[in-house]
Amino acid sequence: MALAQLVYPGAVHSRLLHSLGAYHLMCNAVSELRDKGVDITEDEAVAVKAAILLHDIGHGPYSHALEQVLVKGVHHEQLSLQIMQEMNAQMNGALDLAIQIFTNQYPKPFLHQLISGQLDMDRMDYLSRDSFFSGVTEGVIGYDRILKMLVVHGGELMVEEKGIYSVEKFLVARRQMYWQVYLHKTVLAAEKMLVKILERVREIYHINDEGLKTQSELDFFLGEFNAEMNLAALEKFCTLDDHDIMHAVKVWSKHSDKILSLLCNRLLNRQLYRSRIQAEEFDPQFIKEKQQEAIRQFKIDPADIRYLCFTGEASNTLYQTMDERINILFKDGMIKDISMIDNALIQQKLSAPVKKFYICLLT
Amino acid sequence: MALAQLVYPGAVHSRLLHSLGAYHLMCNAVSELRDKGVDITEDEAVAVKAAILLHDIGHGPYSHALEQVLVKGVHHEQLSLQIMQEMNAQMNGALDLAIQIFTNQYPKPFLHQLISGQLDMDRMDYLSRDSFFSGVTEGVIGYDRILKMLVVHGGELMVEEKGIYSVEKFLVARRQMYWQVYLHKTVLAAEKMLVKILERVREIYHINDEGLKTQSELDFFLGEFNAEMNLAALEKFCTLDDHDIMHAVKVWSKHSDKILSLLCNRLLNRQLYRSRIQAEEFDPQFIKEKQQEAIRQFKIDPADIRYLCFTGEASNTLYQTMDERINILFKDGMIKDISMIDNALIQQKLSAPVKKFYICLLT
Amino acid sequence: MALAQLVYPGAVHSRLLHSLGAYHLMCNAVSELRDKGVDITEDEAVAVKAAILLHDIGHGPYSHALEQVLVKGVHHEQLSLQIMQEMNAQMNGALDLAIQIFTNQYPKPFLHQLISGQLDMDRMDYLSRDSFFSGVTEGVIGYDRILKMLVVHGGELMVEEKGIYSVEKFLVARRQMYWQVYLHKTVLAAEKMLVKILERVREIYHINDEGLKTQSELDFFLGEFNAEMNLAALEKFCTLDDHDIMHAVKVWSKHSDKILSLLCNRLLNRQLYRSRIQAEEFDPQFIKEKQQEAIRQFKIDPADIRYLCFTGEASNTLYQTMDERINILFKDGMIKDISMIDNALIQQKLSAPVKKFYICLLT
Amino acid sequence: MALAQLVYPGAVHSRLLHSLGAYHLMCNAVSELRDKGVDITEDEAVAVKAAILLHDIGHGPYSHALEQVLVKGVHHEQLSLQIMQEMNAQMNGALDLAIQIFTNQYPKPFLHQLISGQLDMDRMDYLSRDSFFSGVTEGVIGYDRILKMLVVHGGELMVEEKGIYSVEKFLVARRQMYWQVYLHKTVLAAEKMLVKILERVREIYHINDEGLKTQSELDFFLGEFNAEMNLAALEKFCTLDDHDIMHAVKVWSKHSDKILSLLCNRLLNRQLYRSRIQAEEFDPQFIKEKQQEAIRQFKIDPADIRYLCFTGEASNTLYQTMDERINILFKDGMIKDISMIDNALIQQKLSAPVKKFYICLLT
Repeated sequence: MALAQLVYPGAVHSRLLHSLGAYHLMCNAVSELRDKGVDITEDEAVAVKAAILLHDIGHGPYSHALEQVLVKGVHHEQLSLQIMQEMNAQMNGALDLAIQIFTNQYPKPFLHQLISGQLDMDRMDYLSRDSFFSGVTEGVIGYDRILKMLVVHGGELMVEEKGIYSVEKFLVARRQMYWQVYLHKTVLAAEKMLVKILERVREIYHINDEGLKTQSELDFFLGEFNAEMNLAALEKFCTLDDHDIMHAVKVWSKHSDKILSLLCNRLLNRQLYRSRIQAEEFDPQFIKEKQQEAIRQFKIDPADIRYLCFTGEASNTLYQTMDERINILFKDGMIKDISMIDNALIQQKLSAPVKKFYICLLT
Repeated sequence: MALAQLVYPGAVHSRLLHSLGAYHLMCNAVSELRDKGVDITEDEAVAVKAAILLHDIGHGPYSHALEQVLVKGVHHEQLSLQIMQEMNAQMNGALDLAIQIFTNQYPKPFLHQLISGQLDMDRMDYLSRDSFFSGVTEGVIGYDRILKMLVVHGGELMVEEKGIYSVEKFLVARRQMYWQVYLHKTVLAAEKMLVKILERVREIYHINDEGLKTQSELDFFLGEFNAEMNLAALEKFCTLDDHDIMHAVKVWSKHSDKILSLLCNRLLNRQLYRSRIQAEEFDPQFIKEKQQEAIRQFKIDPADIRYLCFTGEASNTLYQTMDERINILFKDGMIKDISMIDNALIQQKLSAPVKKFYICLLT
Repeated sequence: MALAQLVYPGAVHSRLLHSLGAYHLMCNAVSELRDKGVDITEDEAVAVKAAILLHDIGHGPYSHALEQVLVKGVHHEQLSLQIMQEMNAQMNGALDLAIQIFTNQYPKPFLHQLISGQLDMDRMDYLSRDSFFSGVTEGVIGYDRILKMLVVHGGELMVEEKGIYSVEKFLVARRQMYWQVYLHKTVLAAEKMLVKILERVREIYHINDEGLKTQSELDFFLGEFNAEMNLAALEKFCTLDDHDIMHAVKVWSKHSDKILSLLCNRLLNRQLYRSRIQAEEFDPQFIKEKQQEAIRQFKIDPADIRYLCFTGEASNTLYQTMDERINILFKDGMIKDISMIDNALIQQKLSAPVKKFYICLLT
Repeated sequence: MALAQLVYPGAVHSRLLHSLGAYHLMCNAVSELRDKGVDITEDEAVAVKAAILLHDIGHGPYSHALEQVLVKGVHHEQLSLQIMQEMNAQMNGALDLAIQIFTNQYPKPFLHQLISGQLDMDRMDYLSRDSFFSGVTEGVIGYDRILKMLVVHGGELMVEEKGIYSVEKFLVARRQMYWQVYLHKTVLAAEKMLVKILERVREIYHINDEGLKTQSELDFFLGEFNAEMNLAALEKFCTLDDHDIMHAVKVWSKHSDKILSLLCNRLLNRQLYRSRIQAEEFDPQFIKEKQQEAIRQFKIDPADIRYLCFTGEASNTLYQTMDERINILFKDGMIKDISMIDNALIQQKLSAPVKKFYICLLT
């Protein structure tokens, strides 16, 4: 959960734990579906379990917060796939089937949907786990009941009619976790601060500046890395972890660049940006005033104001009907998307993405 | 929870337990509000706790299911008040203040709202308790967090801005408990069966029919009770409990009236009405056919068909803006009803009562 | 839990719920053991599940409290067996195997041990359930972990080495539930009161005394029942439930026999015996004084003092090495009884039955 | 929990979280005791809360595992005190009272006992928290009930008679957490590996060896630190955290010293010592053989064998009667130590420290 721990101090659980958890749920899901007569061969079972265990292996330090920042423009799923392919080569093709399922090229689409879909084991685990470790009970979902309600129809993953309320609960819980935790204004402020630190390092980077060196492979990704994620780069990437980042922030807090050391010290001492999230865009005049204040207060070059005061958009989609659907299979064989169900809480209009605007300001 | 135990076998908790729980929550609420500087005198604290402890004392056997059936046309809140008044007389006015608060005649309206309002301790307890004992996790609410978010403003109970999501969760949980538990089609079928049994007894009642006598005060309320709830009647009412009803059903299961013994035996053996709940009214032709079938199958007088096949309406209101409001107090002093809040899950249209239609049929 | 609800008001869960729970655990246990390679045929699986589902079916109203009181001298396991045999006859032998396992006549002893043994599904469920419903967290056990630690060796149920601590926890939890809940002095007082009521009814019983009649099959077991539990008697027994007992107590509370009505009214109004439990026997002189006081206070015939003041023994065995063992299977193949394990909390001397003495006294 | 996360991957919670938790329990304890009429002034309440919040502030990275290793011979409580004293100087004596209580020099001994004693808020929190995050349910205690059972008698903290079982449960849970978690053989192996790494660094340390430098204050404590913990050293100590240690291990994994890099790489890749824990001392001949094997396998100087194969003692004291007591206050005013109570689970002989022997071996 990246820097959510600065608001929810229990939220320090690791990606390893999440991967083990998602794997555990996958074992249960496979078992439940087989009990219902769904044909899953032993090879498929192993493959889909391997795939979920590895689905997040491409996440770097501070996961989503630094995604596409540390390794510019590369999405973690692409890195997961590359690592899986490399492992597969070393394992003489033992992961062939897992990779087919992971990339949705296998003829039983429900297997991919168990890994990546509206009701996949990934979400099922992270929602439960994040609410458990953060203590935000609003995010608790009845994952065991949802698992019991899963069915396969025409090769697609669906939910039995009597699971409607559990799915609704799941969608509401997810929405609540977004606004209460993942996009909490202080969590957002902390994560933006870390992003700005890395942006500043990149801006002032010079290969001979010893004060920026961190004794870790971070040096490579800030320096000579040329955007080509070859095997050597991949191996370096795999050694990176949160320790390297926080160690670097400590080192950089003593750097001579005023903005860099300011941001690093602020993060280390939890003196974060003040932030606000609201439904309307911020008034440009208001932003300008705040920026002027910050320039005066910190005596910085106005050209650097983007490090001290900036705005942006945060967005969450409760449930997108466009790309993926949660299909409900009724007893009489009818199939309906949950957003189309009479009296459903999750209405069409609620399924549109919710966009909010934030401002971060150092004071 | 009346006969919900026929579907959720753990849901056998008692009204005493609920009253103790609501009392416990009230103690916490008073303590939280005082910590926030709300002026609650010691007398008021005792009174509001006594009132919540006694708020349901007028509930008879099988509570809501038999309300206004056992004691015709009398609502349980009226009986609670009568019992409190009688206790007050015996206690030399010690409950004066509690009764004022209970009847909303006390100048600090928030005290009454803690007992009866959108976020009262009654609902807070029964939702938590009913979901705990039934095992329906969808009904779990973060009551402790909601309590911490309560504030008093202008004498009215409100919720702090940062409690919005918890309140939303509470409203969604309530809605889910209604449709998954309280109005579950089989629970409804069982409770209607009990109601029909009592209706049949009243219809065929004759003071000299010894086969209807049950050795309990039920005999009085079926017989000579003349709708005047005087002290003598109140005392008889207070002796009634679930045991008397189930004993009576056992006795009546051997009665010579065919319909009465049929219904009693069916309930005792959990061979309930088949039932269905749907959004649209049932087609009169469909109903007629079903009734004909039942008449043929059970060889009963067509005039008695209302005991074997009938329809009705079940309704739940998620959140009524008309009568009561959940006011959110923002940091800047603004007050908004939760249904008016930007991006709220609980939208205006969702706050309209949801009406559904049911059919019950003996087969 | 009989009358434990008078102390722990949440403890109102039913025997049906327990039976379903034990059945659920059995399903898990069978599945775990099969995963470990233990050979359990489909027929055996069905049989052992049927047996656990029915293992308590011979329990009458208020279970242990009235065992051998309502139906004199007959243990509930014998009644369970009789009912199973009768069902078996009606089902053309479908329960043959279940009965063999239940009566430990089947060549795979571990199947019987899953139903009745130191770590059977019965205890696993009731400890978990009773602590859940009573709210006594001291009784919480990690039943899912114990299930995962079960192994079969030489046809006998054992526990893997790494499950030692979980088993210790289980034994300690059981001990704590005994002294905190099952043998709580007030629970004991309430249950003894119910027993004394039935004893009094039997003492003064006369077939023509209409004031003792209760309109239920209780009349049969108090009256003409001649100790032969034939099919007719068994059917009557099966109709009895808690409602009949509490209805009877209400009826008898108006009886002209002073002692009977006194005890019944006391129970109905929760004015129980005062009780005390201690390690040493009570001084006969002390008992005598208390009895004299009671005789004076209630103006009763000294010959009836056993209804108002009496002593007895309550006993709990933490873990009896004599009859049943909890065998731990070590990685190196060695088998040791848990009480013999080095550094075990459960030592030899602790496994001796603990006997305590109680006194009950009406005041 | 230092490196317990290598066995229990959820056990990654921080010391900050523990301190906040212990503070929370202290708030509850003060409130409970005041409700019972114990005189605690507002100043005392603030002081005892400040003291528990700061009680562990002297813990360095990987807490107990590296205690007295990083800063040789200095116990964390001494560092906590030094930091509190420094803060007190900066705060003009605001912590005077907190320090008096922390060092047990205040005339109300129960206040100190709430911070450091058999039933202090520290243990109450860490047991609950560690079992929650590790998922070891055997460690769950009913801390809220124990808090409600606390009383003060003659200035000393005691437990009410009816809290006996809860205290027993607490002691058993603590014992189980020790053997199942804190002294788990693999946790022990990992923590010993970290200790051996630091020992090796110290052994080969040379101020000019750049390959040992880590860009953190760790360099100071490995190098010029002269055992005098003055203000400058204290400030350096306070900047150290887990990130510095793991960063250092990564740096050292590339060092030219064969033993150092071996141990560091093993820890990073979770290829830990194989370990065993047993009741008897290991046979010297057996140890010698294992050491010979390791010397051959890794081709190391026999003088360095203590880094690859070594034995030691692990010990846990369930409950020491010598130094501290858990006094039970009976209703009749009698006071008894819990180990003296009739039928207590925690017997005299169990209260003796349990010593076990371990061996760690690189293979």
